[in-house]
Amino acid sequence: MSDRPYEVIGTRPVRHDGADKVTGRAKFGADVRLPGMVYGYVLRSPHAHARIRRLDTTRAEQFPGVLAVVTAADLPESPDRPVDLVEGTLPLRYVRANVLARDKVLYKGHAVAAVAAVNRHVAEEAASLIEVDYEPLPAVLDVLGAMREDAPRVHEDLRMREFGETTERAGNIAEHFRFVLGEVEPSPTGEGLVPKGFADADVIVEREFRTAMVHQGYLEPQNATALWNQDGRVYVWTSTQGAFSAREAIAWVLDLPVSRVCVYPMEVGGAFGGKIRIYLEPVAALLSRKCGRPVQIVMPRRDVFEATGPTPGTVIRVKMGARKDGRISAAQVWMAYETGAFPSGQCAFGAMCILAPYDIPNLVIDGYDVVVNKPSTAPYRAPGATQAAFAAESVVDELAEKLGMDPIEFRLKNAAREGTRRADGPKHARIGCVEVLEAMRNHPHYRAPLEGQNRGRGVALGYWFNIGWYSACTISVNPDGTVNLVEGSVDLSGTRTSIAMQAAEVLGLRPDQVHPVVADTDSIGPTAVTGGSRTTYATGWAAYEAAHDVIRQMKQRAAMIWDVEPAAISFERGVFRTGERTMTFAELAARLEETGGPVIGRGAVNPASAGGSFAGAIADVEVDPGTGKVRLLRFTSLQDAGRAVHPTAVEGQMQGGSAQGIGWALFEEYAWTAEGAMANSSLLDYREPTALDVPPIETVIVEVPDPEHPFGVRGVGEANIVPPPAAIANAVYRAVGVRLRQLPLKASALVDALRAREN
Amino acid sequence: MSDRPYEVIGTRPVRHDGADKVTGRAKFGADVRLPGMVYGYVLRSPHAHARIRRLDTTRAEQFPGVLAVVTAADLPESPDRPVDLVEGTLPLRYVRANVLARDKVLYKGHAVAAVAAVNRHVAEEAASLIEVDYEPLPAVLDVLGAMREDAPRVHEDLRMREFGETTERAGNIAEHFRFVLGEVEPSPTGEGLVPKGFADADVIVEREFRTAMVHQGYLEPQNATALWNQDGRVYVWTSTQGAFSAREAIAWVLDLPVSRVCVYPMEVGGAFGGKIRIYLEPVAALLSRKCGRPVQIVMPRRDVFEATGPTPGTVIRVKMGARKDGRISAAQVWMAYETGAFPSGQCAFGAMCILAPYDIPNLVIDGYDVVVNKPSTAPYRAPGATQAAFAAESVVDELAEKLGMDPIEFRLKNAAREGTRRADGPKHARIGCVEVLEAMRNHPHYRAPLEGQNRGRGVALGYWFNIGWYSACTISVNPDGTVNLVEGSVDLSGTRTSIAMQAAEVLGLRPDQVHPVVADTDSIGPTAVTGGSRTTYATGWAAYEAAHDVIRQMKQRAAMIWDVEPAAISFERGVFRTGERTMTFAELAARLEETGGPVIGRGAVNPASAGGSFAGAIADVEVDPGTGKVRLLRFTSLQDAGRAVHPTAVEGQMQGGSAQGIGWALFEEYAWTAEGAMANSSLLDYREPTALDVPPIETVIVEVPDPEHPFGVRGVGEANIVPPPAAIANAVYRAVGVRLRQLPLKASALVDALRAREN
Repeated sequence: MSDRPYEVIGTRPVRHDGADKVTGRAKFGADVRLPGMVYGYVLRSPHAHARIRRLDTTRAEQFPGVLAVVTAADLPESPDRPVDLVEGTLPLRYVRANVLARDKVLYKGHAVAAVAAVNRHVAEEAASLIEVDYEPLPAVLDVLGAMREDAPRVHEDLRMREFGETTERAGNIAEHFRFVLGEVEPSPTGEGLVPKGFADADVIVEREFRTAMVHQGYLEPQNATALWNQDGRVYVWTSTQGAFSAREAIAWVLDLPVSRVCVYPMEVGGAFGGKIRIYLEPVAALLSRKCGRPVQIVMPRRDVFEATGPTPGTVIRVKMGARKDGRISAAQVWMAYETGAFPSGQCAFGAMCILAPYDIPNLVIDGYDVVVNKPSTAPYRAPGATQAAFAAESVVDELAEKLGMDPIEFRLKNAAREGTRRADGPKHARIGCVEVLEAMRNHPHYRAPLEGQNRGRGVALGYWFNIGWYSACTISVNPDGTVNLVEGSVDLSGTRTSIAMQAAEVLGLRPDQVHPVVADTDSIGPTAVTGGSRTTYATGWAAYEAAHDVIRQMKQRAAMIWDVEPAAISFERGVFRTGERTMTFAELAARLEETGGPVIGRGAVNPASAGGSFAGAIADVEVDPGTGKVRLLRFTSLQDAGRAVHPTAVEGQMQGGSAQGIGWALFEEYAWTAEGAMANSSLLDYREPTALDVPPIETVIVEVPDPEHPFGVRGVGEANIVPPPAAIANAVYRAVGVRLRQLPLKASALVDALRAREN
Repeated sequence: MSDRPYEVIGTRPVRHDGADKVTGRAKFGADVRLPGMVYGYVLRSPHAHARIRRLDTTRAEQFPGVLAVVTAADLPESPDRPVDLVEGTLPLRYVRANVLARDKVLYKGHAVAAVAAVNRHVAEEAASLIEVDYEPLPAVLDVLGAMREDAPRVHEDLRMREFGETTERAGNIAEHFRFVLGEVEPSPTGEGLVPKGFADADVIVEREFRTAMVHQGYLEPQNATALWNQDGRVYVWTSTQGAFSAREAIAWVLDLPVSRVCVYPMEVGGAFGGKIRIYLEPVAALLSRKCGRPVQIVMPRRDVFEATGPTPGTVIRVKMGARKDGRISAAQVWMAYETGAFPSGQCAFGAMCILAPYDIPNLVIDGYDVVVNKPSTAPYRAPGATQAAFAAESVVDELAEKLGMDPIEFRLKNAAREGTRRADGPKHARIGCVEVLEAMRNHPHYRAPLEGQNRGRGVALGYWFNIGWYSACTISVNPDGTVNLVEGSVDLSGTRTSIAMQAAEVLGLRPDQVHPVVADTDSIGPTAVTGGSRTTYATGWAAYEAAHDVIRQMKQRAAMIWDVEPAAISFERGVFRTGERTMTFAELAARLEETGGPVIGRGAVNPASAGGSFAGAIADVEVDPGTGKVRLLRFTSLQDAGRAVHPTAVEGQMQGGSAQGIGWALFEEYAWTAEGAMANSSLLDYREPTALDVPPIETVIVEVPDPEHPFGVRGVGEANIVPPPAAIANAVYRAVGVRLRQLPLKASALVDALRAREN
């Protein structure tokens, strides 16, 4: 007996999709080829805000090689109703309007019409023949400006929701919510509430932060291939994070029952939250209905930037007070997130996370979701939390400095624990906040001296709450003693393997003896999106249940063979046993046909919540004060994985999240023209971090098992992106003594700040 | 309440695959297109029997555009062992040798080597450059000649099995078995046994019959597309009757665990038993392994005839005696089936069926499976039974005539019933033999006068025992109140619908609310071949079980919602109920997410046996005595369906089986050259019946429910082909007074017989 509690969990097997991914055999959305398939191209708005006076597709339709042209007029007009997207509830009319603009275009790149033709070039040329008469309107581009009463309105019909109720107040503020803990009182200005506790504070820091809109930056562009079949069923092949969420959204937009839509989820070349929403799918379907052929549309890179969902830019104000004993006494947060052309719930996610690492007696958080004439934002890895942590962790760092405390010790003193109440109401369950901080404190990186001029070390902490949601699996036993596992979760990051490993653990098999299949929506039960770090957690749990269902049935078979009661049979480490008699899993698998036929297990779960994950980052930087260039010298990511099912995959998530966090910190932003056009919509101009920018990311997996999950798993996909920008900003401050409060930490801004300090 | 016992069973909904089939959207094996796919061509033997002295592929390999060449040397050499094919047990070495000949070629068309190239033409040209040095051997072409001690041997290593034991006797007789009922005694010649009872007989008829080798005649040629992946898994797309049986056979031939092979069953353009065996699949896989690309091979029509499995030609001797009271007192049968190049178990199937319609006190059946230098035979719709019934039903007709009895009354007098012992040992369960005969007797066709010269009416009866075997299904509930049904049974004849209807009946849904998916072997539990008329019977039963598993789980959900015990909830006609409270299936389906997640039901069965089906045929013919042309004036098919799930589909089976039986009766045969080459291997020369040959087939569905099956279903795919040749031969006799005892009933033979009678 090893002293490891598990045989499979915690090992590092080869990924099931490894060979296909490294040989190029894996099929992504744009690899789909169907007989008779034609190609679509989407015409998009050149204006950030304009009314469509007239739309004439006649010339495009007459262009040789064109098979169909569609506009918003081809969308069904079923009555409006609220629909639940992953990131919040939206009116159906807004979901449809983002697919194809009807009366107004709301951002540059907003889809206006689409053409299907014999090839992409003909489709693009024909699209240029579509005549659109636009009446340009003033564009709303700045979140604070957008909140003003006199700002131009993105939507005439938008009414602010405040504290959960819809008001009569028109404008660009989609939602205002407030979280309150402890004692609060009316603000001296008469507007809103302030927490008590600042009076007790020995130091108070109050700062305003801004973060730019950034893109998930996946390499694979959005794509969709659709066939509207003669029997009224719509088949869609797409690179999506959720076959079932895509099915549902396509059905909403096309006004079909969900079962009339079948989504084939293709391999996904990067998503990070950006491939939950649908964009091209209904357009390809409508084109297919018109021309009777399968239609494929693949976005050019420009459209990926301009017309999919980047993450909100924000303005966040944080005020925190602490006593000399190192305890935070009060916090007040004001946060405004630009949601793009349509509302989104990301500000609330940021508010759930911003103070979650800390036990703060009195706090008030006011959050605002604000629409602007920019692309409709979408989740991006711990959506809303990275912007929030940049603000809060900068202020926490400043507080620690003012109190003369080590920044990790200061955080430990205030760290949230099991039972600490979160700003959004519930208490923390068993969490690893303290354990992550202790791992940071004890890490050689943190203890190593950092010598040299203009060098500094920063730390930060981040939280993501993770989600549960519904998942389904089936497991069929093969006569050679292996099993096939059918799952509804799209595999973005090796979850075929992390889920298969959980089944293997139950079944006493090696991971390679569990063959996972990511199924289409016709072939498995509904399974929520791969997002919220839920997949290894919830679908792994469903696989665990399905594996137990297999074992239950196989015990019945063994009972038949041995002529005993099923209850008299045990199963451990792959062996069925009653008294002295034993049969291995493989031996019994070979006898299923004779004992009643195949064995299929089924598992389905819908955990209401999931254990949250904390992540820490330690960053060493060197600043060139002449150019403002920030060089990362060393970077360590630490994260509570609950139980790391596949440590290599967990480390990969931490490295990936850290690299993206480095991009947020130093380079990435949407640059805007005065008219609201994105000025850098190519991968040459939108600066993602490269191999030269990112040092080897050291990783430390902390394991504080989630007591709710059968194996203690916590989702690990997201929390790791949260702390890097704050850690790097704090490191820059330690290096050169200036604090930048705007992401990205641009070289020009740093040079300006250094010069300003000198003057 | 209707007085129909079922809401769905017995209705005639539109087929789920209807739109795809009529629009051409359905994808058959040859429609598969994979990135980088190349094309294979198989080089085949020009000799019926020859030793391969030398095989040189050098020039083919060097031909421009060639990517790989394979021969039997590329097959693995794992130790020989018996493997269970659907039609019997064969040594693995024979299964491999039929895929690619190693030392000897055993029939013209036997595969010798294969080439993969950039296109079919290059592959074919390169194949012609393969140098094969053959030493021709004398070919064994006649079943009776093959049985002689001094006949050339097809296999050096074949040892006869006799009465279930392997003997030391070498030769071409693969198997000799014997069925005995009642009292028997040693034959006067000292060889074998004869039944007692002939002494009591008032009339005795003893005749010899011959039937030609015929082909299933499906329009879609055999095909296979294979990818040997870098991770060692082999993916195969093929038009097959059984994805799992193909998986197993491919794994045998390639010496892989079954789970390393995944078979995607494509739509099938006709099979009838001929698409159970594998031919091209391992060849395409070996080519793919060599060249690293997907390889597709599609048989030319010539190869379909020469190298797939037609049905055995036979020589059958039947002796029957009957008393004046109309009771058959004894029967003796001697039957020899040519199995082609390798053994096959079809003679035993014929022996199980030949006397099954009758209660005969004393009988002996001796059967011989004999190898010859012809293609290895395969099942064809009630395999072995049609040839046997032609013989027995001709003799029965003659007996009735000699006794002056109506042929149906004579059959009724001797008809098998529940409890009648079958020649192969077991007693008949509840069967519909009498009911089918009564339906024939009462049918307007049988009662209608048939006037005019050279016209005659014949009848015959046929039996097929049907099989059970293993099947698996899963059913997932959609939130819109529909379900998806995943099944492992390939759909040859509308079984998507006949299976979905059984689930719909349980779930209280309409058939179109059950969406069936035929899955690949990675995505559902093992399911036996679509054959033996088992699919609607056994997979329908699995769907019934899966549907009940759904309802059990949904009752638990309803119990949660209503806060009652699941046992307190009833489900009837789509409505869950406890006390006064009700929820429809759709209402509850919409609430699964909130009550614990998705619901998936699973069902698996493996019935050891199935209820046999009886079919009758009534044929009116007109003979042109000058030309020998037989024109069918009217044809009626009657069959016991147990419970007809989808009567239109049942009628379709009866019409299809009758049309094929008409082909056997009048036209179809392999014509042979003296050297053992097929002389008519094209659809121009191999004479299948056309629309001009086949009158509208009237159908009568008899329903004698099988008490074992939850809905009383009996398989209906096969028994209908059994009686037509005998019925037509009997009709020809009634028309012109000569009995032909050789199939097909060729015009030339009829003219000869009429002339002989005149002389």
